[in-house]
Amino acid sequence: MATVLTLAGDGIGPEIMTQAVAVLKAVNEKFELGLTLEEGDLGGAAIDRAGVPLPEDTLQKARAADAVLLGAVGGPKWDGIERSIRPERGLLKIRSELGLFANLRVAKLYPQLANASSLKPEIISGLDLLIVRELTGGIYFGEPRGIRTLENGEQQGYNTMVYKTSEIERIGKVAFELAKIRAKANGTAAKICSVDKANVLEVTELWKQTMIKLQQSEYPEVELSHMYADNACMQLVRDPKQFDVMVTGNMFGDILSDEAAMLTGSIGMLPSASLDENGKGMYEPCHGSAPDIAGQDKANPLATILSVAMMLRYTFKHEVSAAAIEQAVSDVLDDGLRTGDIMDSDETGLTLVGCKQMGEAVLAKL
Amino acid sequence: MATVLTLAGDGIGPEIMTQAVAVLKAVNEKFELGLTLEEGDLGGAAIDRAGVPLPEDTLQKARAADAVLLGAVGGPKWDGIERSIRPERGLLKIRSELGLFANLRVAKLYPQLANASSLKPEIISGLDLLIVRELTGGIYFGEPRGIRTLENGEQQGYNTMVYKTSEIERIGKVAFELAKIRAKANGTAAKICSVDKANVLEVTELWKQTMIKLQQSEYPEVELSHMYADNACMQLVRDPKQFDVMVTGNMFGDILSDEAAMLTGSIGMLPSASLDENGKGMYEPCHGSAPDIAGQDKANPLATILSVAMMLRYTFKHEVSAAAIEQAVSDVLDDGLRTGDIMDSDETGLTLVGCKQMGEAVLAKL
Ligand SMILES: CC(C)[C@H](C(=O)O)[C@@H](O)C(=O)O
Ligand SMILES: CC(C)[C@H](C(=O)O)[C@@H](O)C(=O)O
Repeated sequence: MATVLTLAGDGIGPEIMTQAVAVLKAVNEKFELGLTLEEGDLGGAAIDRAGVPLPEDTLQKARAADAVLLGAVGGPKWDGIERSIRPERGLLKIRSELGLFANLRVAKLYPQLANASSLKPEIISGLDLLIVRELTGGIYFGEPRGIRTLENGEQQGYNTMVYKTSEIERIGKVAFELAKIRAKANGTAAKICSVDKANVLEVTELWKQTMIKLQQSEYPEVELSHMYADNACMQLVRDPKQFDVMVTGNMFGDILSDEAAMLTGSIGMLPSASLDENGKGMYEPCHGSAPDIAGQDKANPLATILSVAMMLRYTFKHEVSAAAIEQAVSDVLDDGLRTGDIMDSDETGLTLVGCKQMGEAVLAKL
Repeated sequence: MATVLTLAGDGIGPEIMTQAVAVLKAVNEKFELGLTLEEGDLGGAAIDRAGVPLPEDTLQKARAADAVLLGAVGGPKWDGIERSIRPERGLLKIRSELGLFANLRVAKLYPQLANASSLKPEIISGLDLLIVRELTGGIYFGEPRGIRTLENGEQQGYNTMVYKTSEIERIGKVAFELAKIRAKANGTAAKICSVDKANVLEVTELWKQTMIKLQQSEYPEVELSHMYADNACMQLVRDPKQFDVMVTGNMFGDILSDEAAMLTGSIGMLPSASLDENGKGMYEPCHGSAPDIAGQDKANPLATILSVAMMLRYTFKHEVSAAAIEQAVSDVLDDGLRTGDIMDSDETGLTLVGCKQMGEAVLAKL
């Protein structure tokens, strides 16, 4: 019997989680998945209860669970708090403690929402791009780090960007494997683009060399290209459909995946997965905790609901239920239901709905 | 009597430089600027002659000059060369040796070229954004750096992102001052957005704190906001016109300025300046050396010509000649002249021209 830990978090977290949990329970029953749900807290909610953003009992539950479903963390309430216990620290720590090194973010354009993009339709129609981001290494976790006082009295801040071969190979394999799966599903040739800044940074030169060796020894059938991070950021704006799978380190991945998500114009639709070596994962929407609309039943629960689908696919290998959820989401969009973030007032036939109503509509389709 | 050193560089560098130099000579005469021109080599051209990308004699000339005009460096010919003497190293070294810490990149949309953008017209019409990038510090130059072999035999790459208070203040002042000048010229309120990743990186937390203190003590009249790099990259796609001046470190600046440039769709139009503490500067187009079209008279010389205008404005404080060049460029666009990179085959009344013809057209307008 498998267990899913839900961490609603802060801001709009609780309301989107309520809808996602309802969907998860429904498919659990319908497809007899035998999943048990547990609850925990993370981020600001955990700070309020336990004084730290990732309390020991939450971590225990997360370790014991087979998958974690996360809402969103952080908000202005905790902005003044001492750095080491801010909400984001809880997120970084749970990623690291659970060994969730592979972050998968899909930037997929829903045809029903094409107008939401700031890009021209021909540039983004049909966009379906996967960014594989290394999540437990690089400059996010590198030591030494800190702020020190120099001899002349001024301060100096420093961080270390560091990767070793095995870390690069590990994330590279995930990207190559996913490229093969996607190519098979789409009937196309498998290709990945590795993003680095090898012309300046030694650590990313090792990254590039390691990717080349990995491709030559284990994935000769997958096409491997390389791009500097600055150029990749440009090319995503110019012609995002040139990419299928992109793989990169923690910081470039943070930046590029947000940019890629925004190309669609509907970040409220995009789920993500963070996986360990054994397929255990944490699943969460790409968007943040949106404190400005929290508690007003305005949030879009679809990214969290789609995160449930990713969980069923990647951790529980249950493609049928994952696809059923994705179909239900597509159906409610076809019906013209829209939360505020994806509403287009110029289009006719659309109905503005709240978070609850959107969740219930998905449920009804299942 | 002031001196300008021209470094044509590689790829399309020589051909765009020929046109820019002709323009520079013309305004030099017309406005009696008294500038003397010298030549030098940098990048691949220098490797071929002297074995290193920044030869000592080039550096001497650059130190002696009041301003440097650079074409572009690099190309596949030198890709296999040992890291420490690759063309890009020459660029990084000249920036560092001349103390060119302030990199100014303007992302400005020419109304005549609005169609070239991959973004919707309403998102980018009127875009005029300045990115101020710190250019001689941060992870580009931080020590320790390298690739080492660990005890278990695998390799580890590492770089150091480092900034001290004085470096941050120095670039901050440039951004605040430019925001004031721009606001005055546009009749708007002065504002800058500082980009960091203070929720994760200590070095950028110091960056943020230093910007706040600087604003409070010296620039209370300028509005200062902060944005995380991932969000900034997203916001540039979603609504770039929310920004006026952005200021950030070397690596985030590399990425964001390329993204911002591509928003216009016509990177062949964008100049840049890299300034030291005394207004001495190196001026160069934002685009690269485009080896694929080198020597074919297809390159767009306008970004280099506009770099001459920036030079006249920032180093030689000669606004009249700078404005004259900018006007001439705008006039040739009005006349419908287009190089291949900015040609729009759907638009009527345009004439495709080569690099030389474009340069001569600008000259004729002066
Ligand atoms: C909140 C922050 C620490 C986090 C990150 O930088 O990884 C976020 O931006 C993300 O991408 O999940
Ligand atoms: C060529 C490279 C070293 C350089 C940089 O990264 O600074 C370039 O991308 C730039 O922005 O001028």
